[in-house]
Amino acid sequence: MDYCIAISEDNKFSCKNSSLATVEDFTFSGIKSAGNFKATGFTSMGVNSNVFPGLNTLGVSFVRADFDVGGVNVPHFHPRATEVAIVLEGKIYSGFVDTKNKIFAKVLEKGEVMVFPRGLVHFQMNVGDVPATIFGSFDSQNPGLMKIPNVVFGSEIKDELLEKAFGLNSKELSKLKKRFSPS
Amino acid sequence: MDYCIAISEDNKFSCKNSSLATVEDFTFSGIKSAGNFKATGFTSMGVNSNVFPGLNTLGVSFVRADFDVGGVNVPHFHPRATEVAIVLEGKIYSGFVDTKNKIFAKVLEKGEVMVFPRGLVHFQMNVGDVPATIFGSFDSQNPGLMKIPNVVFGSEIKDELLEKAFGLNSKELSKLKKRFSPS
Amino acid sequence: MDYCIAISEDNKFSCKNSSLATVEDFTFSGIKSAGNFKATGFTSMGVNSNVFPGLNTLGVSFVRADFDVGGVNVPHFHPRATEVAIVLEGKIYSGFVDTKNKIFAKVLEKGEVMVFPRGLVHFQMNVGDVPATIFGSFDSQNPGLMKIPNVVFGSEIKDELLEKAFGLNSKELSKLKKRFSPS
Amino acid sequence: MDYCIAISEDNKFSCKNSSLATVEDFTFSGIKSAGNFKATGFTSMGVNSNVFPGLNTLGVSFVRADFDVGGVNVPHFHPRATEVAIVLEGKIYSGFVDTKNKIFAKVLEKGEVMVFPRGLVHFQMNVGDVPATIFGSFDSQNPGLMKIPNVVFGSEIKDELLEKAFGLNSKELSKLKKRFSPS
Amino acid sequence: MDYCIAISEDNKFSCKNSSLATVEDFTFSGIKSAGNFKATGFTSMGVNSNVFPGLNTLGVSFVRADFDVGGVNVPHFHPRATEVAIVLEGKIYSGFVDTKNKIFAKVLEKGEVMVFPRGLVHFQMNVGDVPATIFGSFDSQNPGLMKIPNVVFGSEIKDELLEKAFGLNSKELSKLKKRFSPS
Amino acid sequence: MDYCIAISEDNKFSCKNSSLATVEDFTFSGIKSAGNFKATGFTSMGVNSNVFPGLNTLGVSFVRADFDVGGVNVPHFHPRATEVAIVLEGKIYSGFVDTKNKIFAKVLEKGEVMVFPRGLVHFQMNVGDVPATIFGSFDSQNPGLMKIPNVVFGSEIKDELLEKAFGLNSKELSKLKKRFSPS
Repeated sequence: MDYCIAISEDNKFSCKNSSLATVEDFTFSGIKSAGNFKATGFTSMGVNSNVFPGLNTLGVSFVRADFDVGGVNVPHFHPRATEVAIVLEGKIYSGFVDTKNKIFAKVLEKGEVMVFPRGLVHFQMNVGDVPATIFGSFDSQNPGLMKIPNVVFGSEIKDELLEKAFGLNSKELSKLKKRFSPS
Repeated sequence: MDYCIAISEDNKFSCKNSSLATVEDFTFSGIKSAGNFKATGFTSMGVNSNVFPGLNTLGVSFVRADFDVGGVNVPHFHPRATEVAIVLEGKIYSGFVDTKNKIFAKVLEKGEVMVFPRGLVHFQMNVGDVPATIFGSFDSQNPGLMKIPNVVFGSEIKDELLEKAFGLNSKELSKLKKRFSPS
Repeated sequence: MDYCIAISEDNKFSCKNSSLATVEDFTFSGIKSAGNFKATGFTSMGVNSNVFPGLNTLGVSFVRADFDVGGVNVPHFHPRATEVAIVLEGKIYSGFVDTKNKIFAKVLEKGEVMVFPRGLVHFQMNVGDVPATIFGSFDSQNPGLMKIPNVVFGSEIKDELLEKAFGLNSKELSKLKKRFSPS
Repeated sequence: MDYCIAISEDNKFSCKNSSLATVEDFTFSGIKSAGNFKATGFTSMGVNSNVFPGLNTLGVSFVRADFDVGGVNVPHFHPRATEVAIVLEGKIYSGFVDTKNKIFAKVLEKGEVMVFPRGLVHFQMNVGDVPATIFGSFDSQNPGLMKIPNVVFGSEIKDELLEKAFGLNSKELSKLKKRFSPS
Repeated sequence: MDYCIAISEDNKFSCKNSSLATVEDFTFSGIKSAGNFKATGFTSMGVNSNVFPGLNTLGVSFVRADFDVGGVNVPHFHPRATEVAIVLEGKIYSGFVDTKNKIFAKVLEKGEVMVFPRGLVHFQMNVGDVPATIFGSFDSQNPGLMKIPNVVFGSEIKDELLEKAFGLNSKELSKLKKRFSPS
Repeated sequence: MDYCIAISEDNKFSCKNSSLATVEDFTFSGIKSAGNFKATGFTSMGVNSNVFPGLNTLGVSFVRADFDVGGVNVPHFHPRATEVAIVLEGKIYSGFVDTKNKIFAKVLEKGEVMVFPRGLVHFQMNVGDVPATIFGSFDSQNPGLMKIPNVVFGSEIKDELLEKAFGLNSKELSKLKKRFSPS
């Protein structure tokens, strides 16, 4: 099929009858402006096939990310996609680490593009004097997102394992877990 | 492998030694500004793995397209990719046709996004009062581009076939072929 | 699973219970003879998984195409498949255009085979003295079909865009649109 | 890329320079007539990307098979492809076995089509009064072929294993191995 | 999605609501010990997504196989997967045949690993003095299994075809069919 | 092709001539015993297509992991594969975190199997009284490995970014970076 606009009901999936499809099923207007910044001076809206059902079966999705001055997009990765990111506004320190633990990072300016290979950890920080914006796109309709600090310190992995893994004592770990505790 | 920065020599392909890879292999600065408009008030720069060798094996590529007032991106398609396009500036009439010959088209404004499913014919026109810009991305490192007018009337398909296919007489066909003749 | 014979009800999809599958689910008898020729001296029957539910999940489909003397299969493409076509009867001028707008075309005789790479525009015409027949097969269970004349001139793309794209005046465009209007 | 016409030299692979590609790279004339029948009243020519380099990267290949009266295409399978087979001449008993060991078989006539799902064992026999011909196509440029009798009894698998597997005594096995010995 | 724990009802498939997923959905305890040996001194338990619904959409599955002294895993293949097999206990003669009918076989000891490429016929026999065990894993959630003796002689393929294919007389074929008859 | 045993020379890749292939190309004997434990009481040997060239193009690879009492396999992920892990000896606390930050973890015993979906962070610790061993297999010939502590604190990501991302002061970060500094 050309497309399958997703309909889900009780966790069962089907496609919208194609004779009922309209142009609104293939356009998205929800990222015209930035959201509110969180504590790290960062906000993002990932638009996957759950949010935009017309993407279903098409193999693509996208994200808008906004950075306050000094704002940080914490080290994270997408388990199911490569990302292409273009700077729409501002100056962004941007980079990734490969599986040999080699870092590739630099400051990008408006109109510059960086690619983050599938599944590799990457990160960004606004190093300019004004807010900054990035548009990223993915080769998966549902790339997934794992934010390293939250995954590791906010998911209730056994303390003893984390202490050994990171070389932390229990007080140090406690502080980190408190910060990233979901509630 | 995480990536394979393409090197081609005499049509033989290899990967750059990964210990020599730098951040410059994964960033692209060539679409910070628009090119010069062609006759149709349009200019674009497609950035695939031939242009940006770091995209090799990563399954993604992208394009910047600029439209003068009234400028047209002629009906075309990408044989190997779905496209996600975001309007960076201006007002763009944008649409595609599916395999049941149904059209999906509307005017997009800055910050709005449209998806063009894999292989379907699509088109755009600047219907605003100022130049317009689009950033598109693809789920293929080499999506390919077939511009309908050029493919059909500029490629030396046998006249008799084209006359029958489009219901044109030989004078009408001649005019069209002249316009899209490559030289 | 080995196969999933498609059943669709209310746009929801399931597989026929495999214990009820019979050999009739995997054989097709509907292309033993040609259909009736249309105005262009051409008729075809595409057999995808909608027509032949046993093809579902198997990644293949096929088509029979018949050409009257001088009959034309208009420039078209399949968004989701490569095609292998064998001439069963007659002499067929057959070709495709690649993304560099280079044409590859020649006259094929009975028993000769041509391959049309995924997504590229191709076309055929019976240049012999008797009716001709082709059997084509695809590496997709639903390759899709976009006939260029109908997509471009029969789908209600905005007139101004088409006039600029093809260099036509409004009278010339009107004639073309009338010919390919769906009703 | 649209295509990569394979060139191999010393087991290293490259693509023919696309500016040198011609229509002959995409057409094949070698199956216009049948080969000579072997002992089983059968002959076939498989046309994969080794034989027809233009198929490289295109994901398709094909075969012509001819059957003398009573001729047999022994139980076999293709490790990497689904097959679509159309009867060009004659009457062919044709079938496959699924992974639940259920058989699907019937007699096909000229113009009828059967699909053999990926990797399943299938077989054919000319049950008509005249020679018969089939054209098969695959969704792989190199589907592979494993003929069961030759794989099992002609490949030097340890005797003790085969005797136990098939419940044969050593004399019975010897006879079978002699028949399918490669030399 | 990260995963889709399969639920099937009346041959319709859906995913378990992810908020109800537990660690039990991703762990399997059913192969801690061997099953009972069959006539060939062999027993196996294949664990695919039908048996272990958490594997659904994850692209992997596995098998435990146990061999009595002299026990045989008959020549077989998996239509949809490559297999990696590690010897957990004992000495196993293990091999496969490629599509050129070349055999690759040797005796493996505890801790040694062999790979069986996708779709190729392979086989094993315990050639040691004690029972032996293998753990195999597949790059498909449902690799399928075709045991050659059963497929060929236990599936009701037409006698005449099998006699010609294997060079057997009707008495010899009868004996083989009787042995592998399903009932 | 059935297989392509990788040969690389000067970063150019080719396949070993298949007539020279032997059974040794498809068997691996290097994980019969454990390596030496590192500081975290853990040692592993990942066997991908670089280490075992016969895996090239086959889409699978594997790993042996050994844990001293209390030993830890730090939180990590594989960017390009799902993993199936079976406990060969001992008691292993084993788990993963999904993209909603939900943890799935439990203690596995000998013969139990756990699956880690593609790209999700997972971890293990020997919670028994004796050394423990796991065999894992992957649906990729080169799954990649990113160990979270090393990626984040051992790769020279800008200090300011890490401090903000994890809520660490510069002294705390220094300690962590020192621990995971590569030299």
